Amino acid sequence: MPQFLDTRDDAFDAAFTALLCAKREDSPDVDAVVAGIIADVRTRGDAAVLELTAKFDRLQLTAEGLRFTEDEIAAHCAQVPDAERQALEIAAERIRAYHVRQMPQDAEWTDPDGATLGWRWGAVSAAGLYVPGGLASYPSSVLMNAIPAKVAGVARLAICVPTPGGVVNPLVLLAARIAGVDEIYRIGGAQAIAALAYGTESIAPVDKITGPGNAFVAAAKRRVFGKVGIDMIAGPSEILVIADGETDPDWIALDLMSQAEHDENAQALLICTDADYGRAVAAAVDKRLETLERRAIASVSWRDFGAVITVRDLDEAAALSNRIAPEHLELCVSDPEALAAKCIHAGAIFLGQWTPEAIGDYVGGPNHVLPTARSARFSSGLSVMDFLKRTTLARMTPEALRAIGPAAEVLARSESLEAHGLSVTARLDKLNR
Amino acid sequence: MPQFLDTRDDAFDAAFTALLCAKREDSPDVDAVVAGIIADVRTRGDAAVLELTAKFDRLQLTAEGLRFTEDEIAAHCAQVPDAERQALEIAAERIRAYHVRQMPQDAEWTDPDGATLGWRWGAVSAAGLYVPGGLASYPSSVLMNAIPAKVAGVARLAICVPTPGGVVNPLVLLAARIAGVDEIYRIGGAQAIAALAYGTESIAPVDKITGPGNAFVAAAKRRVFGKVGIDMIAGPSEILVIADGETDPDWIALDLMSQAEHDENAQALLICTDADYGRAVAAAVDKRLETLERRAIASVSWRDFGAVITVRDLDEAAALSNRIAPEHLELCVSDPEALAAKCIHAGAIFLGQWTPEAIGDYVGGPNHVLPTARSARFSSGLSVMDFLKRTTLARMTPEALRAIGPAAEVLARSESLEAHGLSVTARLDKLNR
Repeated sequence: MPQFLDTRDDAFDAAFTALLCAKREDSPDVDAVVAGIIADVRTRGDAAVLELTAKFDRLQLTAEGLRFTEDEIAAHCAQVPDAERQALEIAAERIRAYHVRQMPQDAEWTDPDGATLGWRWGAVSAAGLYVPGGLASYPSSVLMNAIPAKVAGVARLAICVPTPGGVVNPLVLLAARIAGVDEIYRIGGAQAIAALAYGTESIAPVDKITGPGNAFVAAAKRRVFGKVGIDMIAGPSEILVIADGETDPDWIALDLMSQAEHDENAQALLICTDADYGRAVAAAVDKRLETLERRAIASVSWRDFGAVITVRDLDEAAALSNRIAPEHLELCVSDPEALAAKCIHAGAIFLGQWTPEAIGDYVGGPNHVLPTARSARFSSGLSVMDFLKRTTLARMTPEALRAIGPAAEVLARSESLEAHGLSVTARLDKLNR
Repeated sequence: MPQFLDTRDDAFDAAFTALLCAKREDSPDVDAVVAGIIADVRTRGDAAVLELTAKFDRLQLTAEGLRFTEDEIAAHCAQVPDAERQALEIAAERIRAYHVRQMPQDAEWTDPDGATLGWRWGAVSAAGLYVPGGLASYPSSVLMNAIPAKVAGVARLAICVPTPGGVVNPLVLLAARIAGVDEIYRIGGAQAIAALAYGTESIAPVDKITGPGNAFVAAAKRRVFGKVGIDMIAGPSEILVIADGETDPDWIALDLMSQAEHDENAQALLICTDADYGRAVAAAVDKRLETLERRAIASVSWRDFGAVITVRDLDEAAALSNRIAPEHLELCVSDPEALAAKCIHAGAIFLGQWTPEAIGDYVGGPNHVLPTARSARFSSGLSVMDFLKRTTLARMTPEALRAIGPAAEVLARSESLEAHGLSVTARLDKLNR
């Protein structure tokens, strides 16, 4: 049973705050182990990576075998049935079309003082993408990480995917190929992150690492941050559905379960304006949980972290949504645009009953890598921006320096940074001579 | 004496690599202390902040005295001489004019399948800015952090600035007032970061924290990251000047020293096409170091981390610059635009001999908070983007769902995420009934 809350109840505020603060993630402390693995890979390179792969993935490789050859990739891709191949291609095309629009513009202008100012965007030269092995080896995540990198113009994009016992998901390789990935290595864990960040004899280092992973991968990403850039460290998935009662309760139930089935720590929340409707959705969830393949996972998530919240009106719903700052926000209401305008903190908004969140996971176009754990208050989903960096540009003329240089001299003096001021003074002296 | 290197020497590569890898930063391990301070502030709120302020800043405050009143701010601001006030206003106006141009556009479009897609930018609701006390209490940094936040639309911007023994830099308060800061607290250290992140009885929590600080502040920012957003953790400052020999060696010497004077761990590098010119610059540095106020600091930086590198031509200079990925890159050459086009990794580029780096520190317009320690390979300087976050938007019509839903069903099945697929199937069943 999820929690049933009602904003009219006196106990609501306390219960809602507890819901917001519920710690959903167990982070095992693997930092010491990870530090050792990274140090080992930095010191011994390929040899360390090969030993760790034999140990953790039960896979004996040689340095030459770390990387999938083109023939191996082609052979795996050939196993993918046509329906899956076409679905991946449709998804890739839509994701690409969305992300192309995100490319920012360079700028340059000359201001009234004669200073030419601007900025220039450039792609990260090399990026690495981590893809988990086993159950969570999602081809859709390959597309969502790799396509923005390639749209941004990353020249070299390497993937690391562990293949425990030598088993690989052919759809992952096909998704990589469709997305234009340049290199694929059959390694995983902290050793893969270390290899990407520091390089080995066989793997050139990259500048940025993205992609999800287990606790070891997350700890390794935190540790190599600074040496390379990383994306966010994602927490368990979340969905908030706001419904005005006009959508089939079974649809909402499935939308809630599509997050709950990810992870026992996932969170599925419903806010509705009618308590009876909320109970109808909960009943529909119970019915679906009788047969759902991943009912063991989904039912734990729904029981431990699910909630059905009844509110007085949609303004109240928006206010609660802004406190939650959900990763996914689905608005199954008659005027979703009006409600969306009031929901200012959310990773992604799905408007109207014909937009189930799962569309966004695969083929909608926007990225499915989104801020979790209330971080939508201050961060954004993955985009081409994550693979670009900006260089600012400034050019003074003698006239511009004469106009604004004196202010710089005053401020440098006030900060006791004499050389800063003198670097301007020396030039102004020449102009004034 | 700095290092003198020449790309024609056999030993160059090894020496240059050593220069790149030189560890310039001592990071004292204060993490355990900081963890205790944060826990204390989370538990005891104001009481902990007041005790820690008494202990570290020798300042007895009450909860009511944590925040500067408007009258106190006005009284301090009235002490600032007109020249400084005008210089701050000129700087603020130019910084604002630059950053206004960075505001990104929202987007919305309908694609051929009938799906409406887009995104919407929104400001972080509340941000906190840390300003160091003492020597490094720079009013220019207040402008560089606060103005982008206000341009982005941050409704509530709070500053924490320690006032050891009760002493405050009036220019810091004036800069905050000019930039439109809403609240100023006289606290510092890890306790200030904890108060901003978690809130106390007197200080409401923020969503994002930016600004430089000492090792305690940096460690605290790392620890609260996730609960709130943070900006980069800045390392010691760096400059690379590329010169073709046509600029007065004394000007280059001053530009180099304007970084070296920041910090014994700062790094000032010169790349030139003529060894004699390099020696002339080094001689000019020596001469300036005889009289420079901060010669004790600047001479250590120049001796330990400075270098003069002679290259065959400017293409070689650009290639070395890209390996360095400098925070500040100054191009004192006859065609700086042509050279800038080849320098793809740099935080900020200063074009031509009339653009000393110090102009960028104060009045140029671009931000002076820039990526250090080679991180310009993958990150950018501070901008309005740091105070904005993007929500993606998607709305399907029944027709759009019919067109792209089947691909989502196929991919959900291939990832064994049944509820994802069913959430689409249930809707398509209704349409096809």
